[in-house]
Amino acid sequence: MKPNYHYKDVAETYLFSTVAKKVSEYSSANPDQKILRMGIGDVTLPLAPAVISAMHEAVDEMSKKETFKGYGPEQGYAFLRESIQSYYARRGITLKTEEIFVSDGAKSDCGNILDLFDADNTVLVPDPVYPVYVDTNVMVGRKVSYMQATAENGFLPMPDETKKADIIYLCSPNNPTGAAYSKDQLQKWVDFALKNGSVILYDAAYECFVTDGAARSIFEVEAAKRCAIELCSFSKTAGFTGTRCGYTVVPEELIFDGMSLRKMWLRRQTTKFNGVSYIVQKGAAAVFTEEGEKQIAENLSYYRENAKAIAACMDECGIPYTGGKNSPYIWLQCPCGMTSWEFFDYLLEKIQVVGTPGSGFGKNGEGYFRLTAFASRETTQEACDRLKALLKQ
Amino acid sequence: MKPNYHYKDVAETYLFSTVAKKVSEYSSANPDQKILRMGIGDVTLPLAPAVISAMHEAVDEMSKKETFKGYGPEQGYAFLRESIQSYYARRGITLKTEEIFVSDGAKSDCGNILDLFDADNTVLVPDPVYPVYVDTNVMVGRKVSYMQATAENGFLPMPDETKKADIIYLCSPNNPTGAAYSKDQLQKWVDFALKNGSVILYDAAYECFVTDGAARSIFEVEAAKRCAIELCSFSKTAGFTGTRCGYTVVPEELIFDGMSLRKMWLRRQTTKFNGVSYIVQKGAAAVFTEEGEKQIAENLSYYRENAKAIAACMDECGIPYTGGKNSPYIWLQCPCGMTSWEFFDYLLEKIQVVGTPGSGFGKNGEGYFRLTAFASRETTQEACDRLKALLKQ
Repeated sequence: MKPNYHYKDVAETYLFSTVAKKVSEYSSANPDQKILRMGIGDVTLPLAPAVISAMHEAVDEMSKKETFKGYGPEQGYAFLRESIQSYYARRGITLKTEEIFVSDGAKSDCGNILDLFDADNTVLVPDPVYPVYVDTNVMVGRKVSYMQATAENGFLPMPDETKKADIIYLCSPNNPTGAAYSKDQLQKWVDFALKNGSVILYDAAYECFVTDGAARSIFEVEAAKRCAIELCSFSKTAGFTGTRCGYTVVPEELIFDGMSLRKMWLRRQTTKFNGVSYIVQKGAAAVFTEEGEKQIAENLSYYRENAKAIAACMDECGIPYTGGKNSPYIWLQCPCGMTSWEFFDYLLEKIQVVGTPGSGFGKNGEGYFRLTAFASRETTQEACDRLKALLKQ
Repeated sequence: MKPNYHYKDVAETYLFSTVAKKVSEYSSANPDQKILRMGIGDVTLPLAPAVISAMHEAVDEMSKKETFKGYGPEQGYAFLRESIQSYYARRGITLKTEEIFVSDGAKSDCGNILDLFDADNTVLVPDPVYPVYVDTNVMVGRKVSYMQATAENGFLPMPDETKKADIIYLCSPNNPTGAAYSKDQLQKWVDFALKNGSVILYDAAYECFVTDGAARSIFEVEAAKRCAIELCSFSKTAGFTGTRCGYTVVPEELIFDGMSLRKMWLRRQTTKFNGVSYIVQKGAAAVFTEEGEKQIAENLSYYRENAKAIAACMDECGIPYTGGKNSPYIWLQCPCGMTSWEFFDYLLEKIQVVGTPGSGFGKNGEGYFRLTAFASRETTQEACDRLKALLKQ
């Protein structure tokens, strides 16, 4: 048997393990120091009460013969797909339930959706980037090229006629930079993709953080239905990182060489997937109830206030940054020309604040640093106080 | 963008939709007739009380900041992998927890594991077969060849030196035939795979139904760790078809061209998957508690009694069959030389019993018919009474 030799080309990423190792070494050497973790991309608030009670009810249903649920539809129960359909409708976007596919999370879909494309396609990803976009393509030997996301373009690269590609990744609001495209900017990407016969994979995992009129869905641009797939998640919206649920929108207008990507994805999911736990789907549907939406909004406000506090701290320190407004991430320029890792060590040594070195996300991330708004209010405020004391000149 | 053209080669399978259509048409035309559904491969008993209470507790943990769980390990929580390790240890099989990967189900793993293999490998599957084995390979353009499972070999094909292959699928106890390999037979397959450098994908989803000393794991054959991956599931063991949890064992001894399949699978799962819901994993771990095992055993006995009743009914009618002993499936030869679909129509028209036509599983399935033990006791008994009245000569 010949193994998939492309796995040899996947770079080992030591980013988060190196961070963990450095923190643990520091902690062992300095057991009395209180370390403030501002690097995590994981939520910390518990699930909303509406979600909890829906899941308890679902567990009870599974305990009785009359209400027990066996295999469900691979693409998700109608009750959840209809809730997602309404969620889009409230933002003026019309989707068919057949275009909505529920999954165990956007990360799974992000990898699995590539099954629909020939290995002989070129891929365009921004730098810096969520490493999964690159690795999943390298694993099948697909050629990856980069577009530059820099301070000059506000970390929002726009189409470049000299950089055509078959598969284009856009993530907005962006991980790691927190920058978010406007509808007008997305229109330009859609025009470019339609002109070149490309497909856009649009990662909308952070859409719920948009507050200032930036786009929340690529389908705000009508013609996007002819060139874009949107990946979305309950992870950040409703704190489902450990509960696992996401969804992907594959419009029926997506036809390439006479092949319907929606039909192909349905075939892929019915063949290689067996649906999401009924209990989890009931919890996810509760996110869209009146009560659920109110509770979710409170949790999001909590994180947004944290983000605002970090952004205000950067303003006070005179440090340039993106994000913090439409995003739980603050992407800041390391002061005094420090590299990402130098700044990491500096913060850890001096004030015991842990963040994520930007260089871990790509070469354009060098000299940048990511802080996140997912810690508790108390941790966030203390971190801001320490940052100000250290960096305010 | 070039779509994956191999999707054009995937046969549309109308088996279960045709069954559903025929039943619904008959039912509309004959609204007073009581139809007995004996074709389903889905469990009907509710989850065990131990599983239910573990999941309630887990939901409660998710409701409090102190016990909330965000991202978990992609390969599954240690508590569950250790329980699975002990489950194998009680059967005399030593596994490392690093060799056990928890997933959202065996169907997902069955498709996703193929990421580890080059497209240029030949695949050997039995006929009749679970269609997923074939379709997932056709989707990447891999060449599929068949080995014949017939009444002559008890539906248990053995290695044939003229039919070499790089990837070999074995499913035991088998879906759809219910036949199960002995340890000695598996030893021959392992020898064959080692001699030819093949990998065996061993589907053990029905292992919990083994009662007569047939093999429950391919790792009962020690050398199998150098050539086999085992896929397993909580679906049939613990009624998790709608709860979604499975696991795959990838031994560290599996090295092909210097590449470790275990490390590759870890890389695949950490890149394209984000773990199973904490709530579901807590439920799955409860399956292995003393209380859980007792309750699960009762449910399995219930289905086994159903299988025994169907088998006894076939004996009384003088109809040859396999399965029913180590399997929830009874694979019977259609009487009077009827084709699978003729017999389907005959049973529906005459006694309103619904089964699954064997021809839907492959050309060797023609003339065969599958009944399942997953219906209620009452339905099963009534179906047996009707079958006897019709078929007993």
